[in-house]
Amino acid sequence: MESENQSAREQLRTEQKRGERKRRSESSKSSSKRHTGPSFKHDPNRGRITHEKKFAAHPIKKLPGGKHGDIRIVPLGGVGEIGQNMTMVEWGSDILLIDTGVLFAGDDAPGIDGIVPDVSYLVERQKNIRGVLYTHGHYDHVAGAKYILPQLGYPRCFASPLTKEILLSTCDEVPGLVDALKPKFTDCNPMTKLTLGKFTVEFFHVNHTIPDAMGIVIHTPYGAIVYSGDFKFDYHPADGNPANMGRIAGIGAAGVAVAMVESTNVLVPGFAPSEYKVLDELREIMEEADGRVILTIFGSSVGRVSRIIEMAEDLGRTVWVTGRSLIKNTQIARRLNYFKCKDNTLRQLRGKVKFGPAKKTLILCTGGQGEYYAALTRAARGEHNSLHLQKGDTVIFSASEIPGNENQISTLKNNLARHECRIINTNNGHTHATGHGYQEDLKLMTNLLNPYYFAPVHGDLHHRMYHRDLVISDLNYPEEQTFVMDNGRGLILNHTGCRLMTPKEEIKTERVHYEFGRPVPVPELQKRVKVASEGLLILTLQHKGEKVSRVSHRSVGFLPGDPQHEVFKKIHEAAQQAFERNYDTKRSHTTLEHIIAKRVEQVIAEHIDRRDKEPVIEVMVVG
Amino acid sequence: MESENQSAREQLRTEQKRGERKRRSESSKSSSKRHTGPSFKHDPNRGRITHEKKFAAHPIKKLPGGKHGDIRIVPLGGVGEIGQNMTMVEWGSDILLIDTGVLFAGDDAPGIDGIVPDVSYLVERQKNIRGVLYTHGHYDHVAGAKYILPQLGYPRCFASPLTKEILLSTCDEVPGLVDALKPKFTDCNPMTKLTLGKFTVEFFHVNHTIPDAMGIVIHTPYGAIVYSGDFKFDYHPADGNPANMGRIAGIGAAGVAVAMVESTNVLVPGFAPSEYKVLDELREIMEEADGRVILTIFGSSVGRVSRIIEMAEDLGRTVWVTGRSLIKNTQIARRLNYFKCKDNTLRQLRGKVKFGPAKKTLILCTGGQGEYYAALTRAARGEHNSLHLQKGDTVIFSASEIPGNENQISTLKNNLARHECRIINTNNGHTHATGHGYQEDLKLMTNLLNPYYFAPVHGDLHHRMYHRDLVISDLNYPEEQTFVMDNGRGLILNHTGCRLMTPKEEIKTERVHYEFGRPVPVPELQKRVKVASEGLLILTLQHKGEKVSRVSHRSVGFLPGDPQHEVFKKIHEAAQQAFERNYDTKRSHTTLEHIIAKRVEQVIAEHIDRRDKEPVIEVMVVG
Repeated sequence: MESENQSAREQLRTEQKRGERKRRSESSKSSSKRHTGPSFKHDPNRGRITHEKKFAAHPIKKLPGGKHGDIRIVPLGGVGEIGQNMTMVEWGSDILLIDTGVLFAGDDAPGIDGIVPDVSYLVERQKNIRGVLYTHGHYDHVAGAKYILPQLGYPRCFASPLTKEILLSTCDEVPGLVDALKPKFTDCNPMTKLTLGKFTVEFFHVNHTIPDAMGIVIHTPYGAIVYSGDFKFDYHPADGNPANMGRIAGIGAAGVAVAMVESTNVLVPGFAPSEYKVLDELREIMEEADGRVILTIFGSSVGRVSRIIEMAEDLGRTVWVTGRSLIKNTQIARRLNYFKCKDNTLRQLRGKVKFGPAKKTLILCTGGQGEYYAALTRAARGEHNSLHLQKGDTVIFSASEIPGNENQISTLKNNLARHECRIINTNNGHTHATGHGYQEDLKLMTNLLNPYYFAPVHGDLHHRMYHRDLVISDLNYPEEQTFVMDNGRGLILNHTGCRLMTPKEEIKTERVHYEFGRPVPVPELQKRVKVASEGLLILTLQHKGEKVSRVSHRSVGFLPGDPQHEVFKKIHEAAQQAFERNYDTKRSHTTLEHIIAKRVEQVIAEHIDRRDKEPVIEVMVVG
Repeated sequence: MESENQSAREQLRTEQKRGERKRRSESSKSSSKRHTGPSFKHDPNRGRITHEKKFAAHPIKKLPGGKHGDIRIVPLGGVGEIGQNMTMVEWGSDILLIDTGVLFAGDDAPGIDGIVPDVSYLVERQKNIRGVLYTHGHYDHVAGAKYILPQLGYPRCFASPLTKEILLSTCDEVPGLVDALKPKFTDCNPMTKLTLGKFTVEFFHVNHTIPDAMGIVIHTPYGAIVYSGDFKFDYHPADGNPANMGRIAGIGAAGVAVAMVESTNVLVPGFAPSEYKVLDELREIMEEADGRVILTIFGSSVGRVSRIIEMAEDLGRTVWVTGRSLIKNTQIARRLNYFKCKDNTLRQLRGKVKFGPAKKTLILCTGGQGEYYAALTRAARGEHNSLHLQKGDTVIFSASEIPGNENQISTLKNNLARHECRIINTNNGHTHATGHGYQEDLKLMTNLLNPYYFAPVHGDLHHRMYHRDLVISDLNYPEEQTFVMDNGRGLILNHTGCRLMTPKEEIKTERVHYEFGRPVPVPELQKRVKVASEGLLILTLQHKGEKVSRVSHRSVGFLPGDPQHEVFKKIHEAAQQAFERNYDTKRSHTTLEHIIAKRVEQVIAEHIDRRDKEPVIEVMVVG
């Protein structure tokens, strides 16, 4: 009893401490209320499981145990951003990888097609790679494959058929790649059990906006390592198949050492709404609309798209599809029987087409993020060959606004308004539901898995720290059993427990930017971006021996409003001087160009106040 | 009775029609419920004022009337964007202007300091300008002055002292400008009445996040023209001075012909929350916090900043201020007595400083939008001289996230999380209230003003169309009395009524981009932006007469991952050929450069698939 009282007091102190963590969502408070036994035999500690008790009796304590060496669990990408998800589990000479996602470039990397983690650590150890396990078919989890898998010598891959097909569809621009990858794939489903090196691997079904999303269980002697994948719990999902809670609880009961749970929506209280609310609303809008319905949706929302096509057929609407990823994924989903429809229900909107009656038309398109070249965006600008918007058209945005896209989405809406289209989006309808669980989904997952150690993944640092805090306060985890990882800096699990890697143990993994299939050196990219805001000055010096015969310049947006600015004359003089002072037959043109550029930089700084801004300077000495 | 029944039936039809405008916020339904007389003498039409009746008996019908020529009401900026607000009212040889705002550049105009409307129409008629009337001191309403007012020959200006001082503070970088403008200003307040040319002008008090925000009434023989300015109704605002509803209703009763009402938050149902909820919350956080409080806020939130400083003094916290606009505006507000504090309460955070005890420290800073060079952003990166963030610091975001800034704000939050600062923002606290009314504020304003014609301003097209629809459905306006204007295309008001200008009557008013005080030609700007995503190729050809002696190139981010690409050789060859084929002593270098660039463009298109992307090509022929 004494010890129980003591731990009850400790519990109280912990709860008081928790009280200090204020300003969490309301939901965070509910878990601290407990029901005690009936009053006639009152014992406040009866049935009370403190976290000390809980972890002392944790399922992993019942495993055989023993020393089996270090297991390293290292995110190479996906923590520190939402995108480029890739995680490594390394145990001696066996390496498993989870996902090979891409990060799409933002404004800081214009022109870049995709960003993936540096995998040189894996390249050196490619003979150890026992397999790449895929959670689901979204691009942030599969579309880095075309950059990464060739570097790793085409390792074996394990994925659901849908995930595999979508992954392969992102590789079709690289000649021969699809043929090289296809035979490497093994089809998996939530019942699959794999033995890969010393590991045993299982999957479990979760809900997401794409069917066949799975979490991954990697069994080890220290307990299982679980990666939740992207998920929410949906009792009525688009594919009619709710996440298998019983299975997840079973995995938890068998002993989970480390759970990595996604954090995308950790700031949102409550449970994520069901996909069926959206489908009901979309059906209602389509029934009501007298004119054409134009629905813009992510190509990745395969589950919803499948149901929408069936719904449209039911309502007698022909479905016109446009947008690369949407066409590709719809074709794959149909081929794999994720939906059924008559051949003439589904058509591609390409070139000149003749639509049927407005009331019988549904147009599915990408472009809801205001992407400049997408079909909807072009139609809204009046630049689409066959899609001429008109009064009576209903435009449904069945997607969230991705942060950073607001301005271009706003431009799109203005252009739609100009055609007097009716706009329905999440402001005035339930036209979208996220695939990522809210706080209660996340807590439920971690509670079911009941891991000894918890490490949030899939989110910015502040999301993951918030997630960690949520698990500490609402699920009663001791802080030392929770870890906030960095890309390249993961966990080491062994017989003594689990810990964060030290900075020395980190794996180098920077972002690699790809453009037209090749990595772009970061300084080149920075130079390009700098030109956009600060302009560029090209200076050509012709010389004969040590004498400069002519200096000419060209400004690309440097002092664009003022081409006659006196500084240009000073630059010419200074460049000439710098050349003549530093000329030496032994000095290369490159060295001279560098010296001249430095001097010109000074002149600009002296003569114009540009507040931290200076143009990119390119000097070309020709002689 | 017959006619009343008829109009009742019409009313019914109108309401049925209104029923079709579905998917508006809940709030939109309330206004259609009416109380009829008591049942013992039941007459459903008793006391019922249909809109036909209402407008037939409208106060402007009681004005003397008569023909007084056309009055043109033209927004030169501010409709089509949120920013660069500027409206012209022209009646014969009398012109009044309302506001001279700036639009801050987005990602599509990197490096640009500010955007304002083209005012060439006004420059030609500057002798007619009777005055510039200012609503309030926010940059999107005043900070275009430094670009615009000198072009207009320094016209007379009318503003509250706070608005004037803030406007002048934005002009202090232009030598002599403050001195030139200062004597042109006349101090105004909500009691001021002005006669300017044929116009009489009055002001009325509204609430906003800055004190002394005013709406403007311009009296004409056809009724008043009212410009709401930015506003909300707040029963407990930061300056303790609620908007004067009685006054506004009085203006309405006297006869308003046209009301221009802002539309910023027209998509948000309900009433905007009061500023005092925020102030209460901020006080609570400051009381609770054991460590330093770092509060980031817009420099423009002068009302809230004033109260926060007094609150901090009350709680014994010294206030350190950093950020240009915040320092400027705080100094102005203190000088004009908008708040009072001891001299040593308020300090500037500049260079090396020694903070007092953490519990006694409040740091006010800008940077809540993640601006790269702002104090908070630098501190979060660990690059601030004196502000070293630490565990125990509470960082409050007392501002909304401006759409488009999410990614940089996210980076900021991640960096703050790295220092284990506690972050409180609108996700987990009432740390900000907007200054722009929600739907019910907007409807209340229009209802009080009771204008005959309604024209929404201050917002994107889709906002203003939504606002127009809201007024039609919820305030029972006939569509033909509502107008959605464009920049340059406003209204013509005369004895026959009011109508939208035809495209022929439009005033040319494009956006003018300023950098370092000078307008930037749009093609120069586009070129800069193009380089960022598509790269630049510099080609230098040396020639002796018709013979090319040497070709050299420099790539700035064009094929950055592949400097040895075979296309460069082909470019050299093609350029040399193009030169030699087209060389002619009569042809200028410029012409030749143009011909060569065209040819190089072709070669690039032939040899690499760049999907709509091509570099900027700069050819320099030197000989």
